[in-house]
Parts: sequence; structure tokens; C-alpha cells
Amino acid sequence: MTKIDTIGRRQRATLPRHARVRVGKREVSDPAEAWAVIDAARIAHVGFVADERPMVIPMLHARIGRKLYIHGAKATRIVKGVEERAPVCLTVTLLDGIVVARSAFHHSMNYRSVVVHAQARHVVNAVEKEAALVALTNRLLPGRWDEVRQMTAKEFNATGVLALDVEQVTMKRRDGPPVDDEEDYNLPIWAGVISLAETVTGIAADEDLAEDVPAPPSVVRSTTRPR
Amino acid sequence: MTKIDTIGRRQRATLPRHARVRVGKREVSDPAEAWAVIDAARIAHVGFVADERPMVIPMLHARIGRKLYIHGAKATRIVKGVEERAPVCLTVTLLDGIVVARSAFHHSMNYRSVVVHAQARHVVNAVEKEAALVALTNRLLPGRWDEVRQMTAKEFNATGVLALDVEQVTMKRRDGPPVDDEEDYNLPIWAGVISLAETVTGIAADEDLAEDVPAPPSVVRSTTRPR
Repeated sequence: MTKIDTIGRRQRATLPRHARVRVGKREVSDPAEAWAVIDAARIAHVGFVADERPMVIPMLHARIGRKLYIHGAKATRIVKGVEERAPVCLTVTLLDGIVVARSAFHHSMNYRSVVVHAQARHVVNAVEKEAALVALTNRLLPGRWDEVRQMTAKEFNATGVLALDVEQVTMKRRDGPPVDDEEDYNLPIWAGVISLAETVTGIAADEDLAEDVPAPPSVVRSTTRPR
Repeated sequence: MTKIDTIGRRQRATLPRHARVRVGKREVSDPAEAWAVIDAARIAHVGFVADERPMVIPMLHARIGRKLYIHGAKATRIVKGVEERAPVCLTVTLLDGIVVARSAFHHSMNYRSVVVHAQARHVVNAVEKEAALVALTNRLLPGRWDEVRQMTAKEFNATGVLALDVEQVTMKRRDGPPVDDEEDYNLPIWAGVISLAETVTGIAADEDLAEDVPAPPSVVRSTTRPR
């Protein structure tokens, strides 16, 4: 938890301004908070090294305990052989707001981000693979796995899954108001926070849908999904 | 442009379903579209290689023509010496929707993403550096640079800026409805698209704001910013 979270408005006002946010101290040490951010992020940006160059690709991810899973052709090409492992960096970021300060220098974003360093490996065990596919589907839309047509053996075999065995997790967060230079607080310049959030803006049924199929619980719940 | 963009609903209905989306053909070849996605994304995920391992960090980015800029301590550490260059991969992703299919296998996301491969270098030229800082501030909040207290020489010198000289830009996009297996369309299973967008959910003035300072045009405009 950063300082700003544990000090209320009234209490904060009695502190010198420079003490309100510990600049450079945005690291969050509680693992549960980091996992919660990973679970709340719809996608991850997965980095790996290909031909000695960095490569970053957006991917769906899911978590089971301390393991993360990604899938699909792009993902599975990160690790070449079945026996091979490859280092990956999976990063998720939730944007919470634009921090509008009195000087350009102190503008910032409020955010929560988690950087995971891990070793990726092909999932060959069928039990682990099915659990990962269930988790990935339910990550996209909680509860969806139980609503869809059962996965065929052909689909199961055609889908490559990578497990990321986690080595290190680092979470950072910035929240709260801008922190300006002391002498700038008297300037007639507006400052504050513009809050941002991802929202569901519409639900469109497939035009080829049988007319008597109502939206299932997973879809109805998506409009009220907390973040 | 992917097929789905150029074919209208009525026209599309006369095509066999498998022709509606060219699966695996999500690449968009128009550079203007790729730049527009880069300009619309609030942050980028920047990948680089550190100690032979991949590292991915969320960063603010700005574009001037065919050059991208990132700044701050984390960014500038990517390139060690003033003369040095380092390969980076900057990726931006806009999530447009959850694609809900009749089978788990065909679930997907609608998205626009751009992967930029570039060489990063320290910006030492003061004219280029100031242009980059203006662009980065206005990227966060268009027009903001002209509203804030002028940057001091000390701030200018304290801020490290990296230019990314672009080598390759690749854009991918998926849009439109789910594409299910032909035989699954008769199943009584809901399918469709849940649209997503980032929205401004509130504006909070700093509690230390002089009471007679109204919200400036940049902040007022932020609530109606197109994406």
C-alpha cells in the first residue's frame, strides 16, 4: 500500500505536501494485490526475445494460483521445442486516471501495473491443459465455459497452451492527486485528476442467432463487472 | 483493411460464413491507420532486452511524424551511453470488444494493435527534446502544454527523453461478429459482441486548488475525447 491510501483527507492536510506521496516509492509489496490486478486486466502485453530483439504482443492471459497461462499460435511460438523453456515478461496495466498538475513536469497517470518475469513452457499434460483452457475462457467472460458447446478433441489438440512458471512479480501503483512544487500551489492554474475506466458500451447479438436465445448470465453480468 | 470492414451487412449475408472474416489475415497495411491507433492509445507497453531477458514496462508515448518519444528515468535506462542505441519494441492495444462465440474455441477479442520495432537513442538536441516534451504533455491531455507553468531549465535538464527511430510498424485488427463452425449456428447458444471503451468517469479538482480557478479547455475537452 502506498502512503496515499492509508492517510485520510483530513489527516493528510496536516502533513507537509512533499510527504503526501512517496515519489519513487510506487512499489506495492502485497502479492494478493498484484494477483488481483492480473485478474482484473483483460489482456497482458507479453514480451520475449526473438533473434536477440525484444518482441511485445498483446495476449489473453489467465491465472491458476501462482501460474499464468497464455494460448494460441503466437504464444506457443515463443517456446520452440517441447522440452525447451524461454524467459518471458508478462505485464498488465490498469489506467485509473490522468494526473493534471500545475507544471508539465508533474503531470502523470494514476495506474496499477504488474510485471511478471517467468519461464514459459509448453503444457503437455492434458489435465493441466484443460484447466488452463477453462481458465482462459472464463477470464474473457466469467462463467462462459459452462455455457458453450463442449470442446472437441480436435480443438483441444489444435490449441497450444503455454504455462508461465512465475519467478518474480512486481507491482507498482500511483494514485491520489498531483504533487506540485510548493511554490506552484499559489498559481492560478487548474490541477486535479481525470478518472478513467473501461466500460461496456453495448451488447450486440450475432445477426445469425436463433431468435429465441436470450443473453446468458455471463453476458448479462458483464455490464456490471467490477474492475 | 480487413474484409469485414469493406463488406456491408446485406452484402455479407450473401457470402458463405467462412468468407466473412479472413482468419489469420488481421494485418492492416495502411500506415495512417497504424499511426492513428498509436495516437489514440493513452499508453504503450515498451519491451527491451536487459541482461538477455525480456522486460516490458508501461510508458507514456508521443509521436512526431515517423518518430516516437518516451521519457523518464525508466525509459532512459534502456539506452546506457549517449552514443549507444538499443532495439525496442513498442506495442499499443485498443480493446474494442469481447467476441462471444458458440464454442470456447472461437471466443476472441475485437481490438486494434500496433507493434513498432525501433532503435532507441538519447535525445541530446535541445530543439528536438523540447518538441518531444511538448508532444508528450499534449499526448496526455491535448493542449495542456500551453496552460501550465513554463518548464524551468532545471526540469528540462532533469528529464531524460528517448527517441525511437522506427524500423517496422505492424498493425493488426479484429472486428465484427464471432465466426463459429457452420454446424454450431443451429445450436441454442447465445453469441455476439460485448463492446468495450475507455471512458472518463469523473473529474476531481485538487483540494489545494485556488477556489477561483475553473477547469481549463484541455480538461473540459477530455470528457468528450473521441477514441
